[in-house]
Amino acid sequence: MTRIAALIDDLFEDVEYAEPARAFRNAGHTVVTVGLKKGATVTGKTLRSKVLIDEGVHDVAPGDFGALFIPGGYSPDRLRVDPAAVEFVRSFVESGKPVLGICHAAQLLITARVLQGRRITGYVSIIQDIKNAGAEFVDAGVVEDGNLLFSRNPKDIPAFIRASLKKLEG
Amino acid sequence: MTRIAALIDDLFEDVEYAEPARAFRNAGHTVVTVGLKKGATVTGKTLRSKVLIDEGVHDVAPGDFGALFIPGGYSPDRLRVDPAAVEFVRSFVESGKPVLGICHAAQLLITARVLQGRRITGYVSIIQDIKNAGAEFVDAGVVEDGNLLFSRNPKDIPAFIRASLKKLEG
Repeated sequence: MTRIAALIDDLFEDVEYAEPARAFRNAGHTVVTVGLKKGATVTGKTLRSKVLIDEGVHDVAPGDFGALFIPGGYSPDRLRVDPAAVEFVRSFVESGKPVLGICHAAQLLITARVLQGRRITGYVSIIQDIKNAGAEFVDAGVVEDGNLLFSRNPKDIPAFIRASLKKLEG
Repeated sequence: MTRIAALIDDLFEDVEYAEPARAFRNAGHTVVTVGLKKGATVTGKTLRSKVLIDEGVHDVAPGDFGALFIPGGYSPDRLRVDPAAVEFVRSFVESGKPVLGICHAAQLLITARVLQGRRITGYVSIIQDIKNAGAEFVDAGVVEDGNLLFSRNPKDIPAFIRASLKKLEG
């Protein structure tokens, strides 16, 4: 079973966090919320769901976890202002451990400058940003390239969960 | 006096629309709100301010206006999903008429692929996206390059208004 870091801040896309996190936990994995400040409560885009941050990104390292999960919404745009969050993502991508992202998640990888030559997908609004970062944008529900596993939007969540659970087993 | 298109959608940064729009109107200019749907009401990020959309972006052309004003927040990310909004911005930049943007506004210019070789500024979260688009990112309160006049964030609003009013006179 894998200890998964879920990297989130305010304005995360509620279902993109809640549904995969529930599925990961139901499968026996541990989901640890990592954010800008330990003990803070962050609020999703719909303003309905609130999530407690278990660990501050300044206090953890990729070595503490077996996988990274990045939900979308505007949370990645907020997180990538923080150099520690960007460095956490950069190290995780380079560690070779699974990085599971959806929607705007790739924005963090762009700022971390780890997309050159990778195949990835993301929300339609960031397609040009993904291409400009030197990656190949693939318009598919789930795109895997090495340790990266990415999906486009909430409609892809069921496929994202299935593929992620398989990757976490491997 | 100039007829200015203010391009906005939901989650615009309230003060980045309200304060420049008021200053432009007080100086005798006309501010026309342009959005995805004429007659819709869009809501700012703080959920406090609501703005009526005067014109749909599908029904207007840069020739209808003398300048373009793009407030920030998450409105540009929403607008750049719509090809008509992207084309409106692209045509405006290439028209040579003033394009006044702040915060996340440059995201629309990235998707419109008009930033190669330009000097521009924007919100800290999109610095890498601006660089990857082939532009020179400048960390200053107001950055002018030809018809482009851009600012970084709400703190720059007073300088943005002063420089914009001067540009609209010229």
